[in-house]
Amino acid sequence: MVVVNVLPPSGCIHLRNIQSSPRMCLKYVVEANQAKLEVVAEEWRISKEKLLTCDQDEKVMQDPSVHAIVIATPTYMHKDLVMRGLKAGKAVFCEKPIAESLECTRLCYHMAQQVGRPLLCAFNRRFDPSFSHLRQEVHGGSVGQVQMVKTVSRDSPMPTLDYLKISGGIFHDCAVHDIDLTCWVLGEYPTHVFASATAFVPEIAAINDHDTAVFTMKFPSGALSMTDLSRNAVYGYDQRLEVFGPKGMVSAGNERPFPLITCSVQGETQPPAYYSFPSRYHQSYIRELDHFCDVIQGLDDLSVTAEDSLKVTSIASTLEKSVVSGKMEQVLY
Amino acid sequence: MVVVNVLPPSGCIHLRNIQSSPRMCLKYVVEANQAKLEVVAEEWRISKEKLLTCDQDEKVMQDPSVHAIVIATPTYMHKDLVMRGLKAGKAVFCEKPIAESLECTRLCYHMAQQVGRPLLCAFNRRFDPSFSHLRQEVHGGSVGQVQMVKTVSRDSPMPTLDYLKISGGIFHDCAVHDIDLTCWVLGEYPTHVFASATAFVPEIAAINDHDTAVFTMKFPSGALSMTDLSRNAVYGYDQRLEVFGPKGMVSAGNERPFPLITCSVQGETQPPAYYSFPSRYHQSYIRELDHFCDVIQGLDDLSVTAEDSLKVTSIASTLEKSVVSGKMEQVLY
Amino acid sequence: MVVVNVLPPSGCIHLRNIQSSPRMCLKYVVEANQAKLEVVAEEWRISKEKLLTCDQDEKVMQDPSVHAIVIATPTYMHKDLVMRGLKAGKAVFCEKPIAESLECTRLCYHMAQQVGRPLLCAFNRRFDPSFSHLRQEVHGGSVGQVQMVKTVSRDSPMPTLDYLKISGGIFHDCAVHDIDLTCWVLGEYPTHVFASATAFVPEIAAINDHDTAVFTMKFPSGALSMTDLSRNAVYGYDQRLEVFGPKGMVSAGNERPFPLITCSVQGETQPPAYYSFPSRYHQSYIRELDHFCDVIQGLDDLSVTAEDSLKVTSIASTLEKSVVSGKMEQVLY
Amino acid sequence: MVVVNVLPPSGCIHLRNIQSSPRMCLKYVVEANQAKLEVVAEEWRISKEKLLTCDQDEKVMQDPSVHAIVIATPTYMHKDLVMRGLKAGKAVFCEKPIAESLECTRLCYHMAQQVGRPLLCAFNRRFDPSFSHLRQEVHGGSVGQVQMVKTVSRDSPMPTLDYLKISGGIFHDCAVHDIDLTCWVLGEYPTHVFASATAFVPEIAAINDHDTAVFTMKFPSGALSMTDLSRNAVYGYDQRLEVFGPKGMVSAGNERPFPLITCSVQGETQPPAYYSFPSRYHQSYIRELDHFCDVIQGLDDLSVTAEDSLKVTSIASTLEKSVVSGKMEQVLY
Repeated sequence: MVVVNVLPPSGCIHLRNIQSSPRMCLKYVVEANQAKLEVVAEEWRISKEKLLTCDQDEKVMQDPSVHAIVIATPTYMHKDLVMRGLKAGKAVFCEKPIAESLECTRLCYHMAQQVGRPLLCAFNRRFDPSFSHLRQEVHGGSVGQVQMVKTVSRDSPMPTLDYLKISGGIFHDCAVHDIDLTCWVLGEYPTHVFASATAFVPEIAAINDHDTAVFTMKFPSGALSMTDLSRNAVYGYDQRLEVFGPKGMVSAGNERPFPLITCSVQGETQPPAYYSFPSRYHQSYIRELDHFCDVIQGLDDLSVTAEDSLKVTSIASTLEKSVVSGKMEQVLY
Repeated sequence: MVVVNVLPPSGCIHLRNIQSSPRMCLKYVVEANQAKLEVVAEEWRISKEKLLTCDQDEKVMQDPSVHAIVIATPTYMHKDLVMRGLKAGKAVFCEKPIAESLECTRLCYHMAQQVGRPLLCAFNRRFDPSFSHLRQEVHGGSVGQVQMVKTVSRDSPMPTLDYLKISGGIFHDCAVHDIDLTCWVLGEYPTHVFASATAFVPEIAAINDHDTAVFTMKFPSGALSMTDLSRNAVYGYDQRLEVFGPKGMVSAGNERPFPLITCSVQGETQPPAYYSFPSRYHQSYIRELDHFCDVIQGLDDLSVTAEDSLKVTSIASTLEKSVVSGKMEQVLY
Repeated sequence: MVVVNVLPPSGCIHLRNIQSSPRMCLKYVVEANQAKLEVVAEEWRISKEKLLTCDQDEKVMQDPSVHAIVIATPTYMHKDLVMRGLKAGKAVFCEKPIAESLECTRLCYHMAQQVGRPLLCAFNRRFDPSFSHLRQEVHGGSVGQVQMVKTVSRDSPMPTLDYLKISGGIFHDCAVHDIDLTCWVLGEYPTHVFASATAFVPEIAAINDHDTAVFTMKFPSGALSMTDLSRNAVYGYDQRLEVFGPKGMVSAGNERPFPLITCSVQGETQPPAYYSFPSRYHQSYIRELDHFCDVIQGLDDLSVTAEDSLKVTSIASTLEKSVVSGKMEQVLY
Repeated sequence: MVVVNVLPPSGCIHLRNIQSSPRMCLKYVVEANQAKLEVVAEEWRISKEKLLTCDQDEKVMQDPSVHAIVIATPTYMHKDLVMRGLKAGKAVFCEKPIAESLECTRLCYHMAQQVGRPLLCAFNRRFDPSFSHLRQEVHGGSVGQVQMVKTVSRDSPMPTLDYLKISGGIFHDCAVHDIDLTCWVLGEYPTHVFASATAFVPEIAAINDHDTAVFTMKFPSGALSMTDLSRNAVYGYDQRLEVFGPKGMVSAGNERPFPLITCSVQGETQPPAYYSFPSRYHQSYIRELDHFCDVIQGLDDLSVTAEDSLKVTSIASTLEKSVVSGKMEQVLY
């Protein structure tokens, strides 16, 4: 198992989880920045021979004892690494999106099919215990035929402007998670979508992105969905999912680090929800890697299919179009 | 104080609240159906001379000791009663909407202004303790400049088909409350609105109405709002309000009759939320009448202005238009 | 229906509830303090002829149109009023305790039996919706054979020293409610009890009373109970009940005026629980009077029997004894 | 780092946590049962040379590269292992209690002092995030001078009879945790204690133990405490802590695996609390080992002192005595 690029938080998260799991054995860590590499090695007690800089990454591809690679680099590097990894016969786990364009994404999945190795697009929220239990309840019929799906995704803390510039915009960076979650719960893709968005933060307006958005999707079954997004929730990482139907409602709320209640003259206070995704999705990152191992060992099918990954991207692009047109747009897959 | 028509639940609610309040004195109850009138009189111990049928209602208008009338009839009767009441110099409390058309509504408010008597359009949710405290917090700056307002309104139980046929449709019957609440919290009216809707219940589809809807409004300040509506929540009357901004979030959830928790092998269970609006909005109906008394006694200004009432109707009509066009529509006031 | 002495808060509560109920008709209000009587009359719009001072109370007893009296005076006046009321053939509702001593209490119940009129000792907590639903669940078997009952009773605000001096002490003034609730839920009386108590407030220590206490009771079935009492909870009136058995647990928590949640950097805050008993037990006071009406009309049996009332007093006295002896004491009934 | 005996669940928990931590390196696992040893080795991928049976444990003591040992054996083996470990110059982490008798416990701590190595009695609840935050709030003054401490400890699932026979009884096996927690929060030891107990389960009665108990402690500051214990909570492992004072209340409730809410006609349901201590105290076991590492590295003082450990045992014995005598007993330290 290899982690390519450990620096964005998700790289560190995967590194930690690989090391803690008895199912995986870390072979290499590849990272462009030599200084950062040493810090990480020190902190995680990784021996020198496992550390590679980017220009040495061919060593990973050539090593037959490497069965799988985990890619957590900036998006523009994804396609090349995915293609080379697959060609070298490795199972590939890649942070979303698989590539910068739909065509490149298709190429990657095509390659995966050709070489017969799994390519997992890491929609980590599916592996969150509350979301996956929710879906199980919904599929078990607890709310009847779904009529409404609602999600909330509000970032905490607000990403840096540097990150936002390369993020791909709020719809491709954030909304894709909500699109995926909604379609995954419903088991269908929308025919029409509508979005509206605003930029309250001047720096975000200046780069033609939005910090606040709502969107609605319409599904073949008649179900409707609603999502609201924000780049900055100061009270913690706010991630909710609610499904409604003729028999009732199931909802998954925010988790907090510990259940402490303080009562005073002012009222009853609980600690804030988890601060950000590494803590909020701690369990889901572990379960996601476990799923990847299951797929490699033939114990499970890929949770996120090529179709899922491609359609989610199409939907995100259609939402962007809708913001400009002010119309509900048909999604062309 | 007079209640005109006691039969729809809201009539009964007002009757009970008038009788329980030391600020009001019940003079007459007017009701078309003689049999029902007697049942009510018996249950509430109202003496015979206070009971009138509709054709006797002129007696109310002529009686100078009647200072105010409460109108809770079917909508088509509103305009006539409002106009006659105002002309007779009574303060008028009228269930929403004031009239069947915008023009008639304008006429009513015009009359109110001419005679100098208050006309209160009963948007009862404003008087709910949790909603009014929420607004107070928001206006006090607790979330900063509002970026997002969300409301949920799901009926319980599903209204009868007879009622739905005369309801005016889900936007004029239900959405008006959410529109009013949202604008009241924000202190501004939307420029553009978008809605999408479905009918899952065949009988509702058959009368060209919807049972499920979502809508989004865009405000001059940049704020966005989202609402979802359903005609049938089996787990209780689901009414929520959430306001989000750069400093945090305030939300008002559902109330339940008593705080009982049962823990078993299956999990932890609480009783359902209040079943329907008479219990859920019990407090707000009482406070609404109190506000009406305050206005009559010159202690407060009308909470719901003519402008509010008229604009909410315009917005509801624009939402209906948007469902058909599939576009975000500009609201023309 | 008559209210005798309206000044302690419970008198006002009953007065308000009698006036709001269509089942009862207020005939007289008797109050020692003429000035207070006038204030109350003004606020509640009670006509002059209904107001009596204490020395005029015989008029109440003589009036055959008075079917029932509600006694909410200081304890030392109870016995005389109860006896005279019963002798005059009235149904009697009396705040706990019925009398200052066990012997006098027995005399009162004896009189009630002789004249065949109901005497209701107002243990209002039994009528709280959450507590009565809890008991119903327990009796329905939801937790199996009860093993543990826990109650919490913490006053808010701290009573005045003037009140505390005549209160009868924390066990007779407060613990009686918890004793009654526990025995009522279990359907049995304890054989042995233990208590420990402290006075943190110097003024309370100075009058040889306690402001903080815990007690444990042991029941024939093997069940144990635990209660903790405080005279001063600054975060609201804290009243809880929890029942545990082999099949699970049922608990009734505190209620708050409205379900508002504020999320900020500091955490998630809800408003405090109800401030004191008039708001917390608002519903139970109404239901208690309704029960009294039911008993008068032969629709129900007395909820609180003579045996209940007498045994609760015995238990409270035994708890006081235990504090001094440091032993678990047998209750002698 | 060595784990001695992996079989009781706590042994497995420590083994897993040692392997997941970058601060510790597993040298040996010692286990009496050869078959179990192999299962564990397989599951945790531990190489053969690290596996020892009990008769080989001298190898551990002799190995100078072993800095610390973790003891999770049945209680009767504790003293010998602790003494040998300390004599060999190892830091020792031992599950509670340190030894079967007070004298032997004193000997162990004496040895620790002589050789200058830390001996940590593993009161794991102190390391629970909610409990340690609670204590921090209390020490920070958020409730003022503490007047009342309450704890609930209800086992899930009910321990096996085999375990119960060697458990030392409910007071030495369970109550010690609550005693320790209470004293640790208060920062003082009780002068007097009282307990009452019952056995509802016939098999538990047959071995002269109890399955249900309550106890009260009285502290020099005037504070009182109350605890209730059960051997069998079917709705999950129930572990609560509540501290009350003149400025308010802080409480730490139960945690559940994920925050899913299901609303139906029957009400609102959440999943049960964590099933048992390995999940409920997952975090505290990790933090406890971290604390042990801190102590070894000189970064922190021992959280649980010799005095704490010895006094908690004295108090548990006094509670047992109180059950028999029916009196509040003075604790003789």
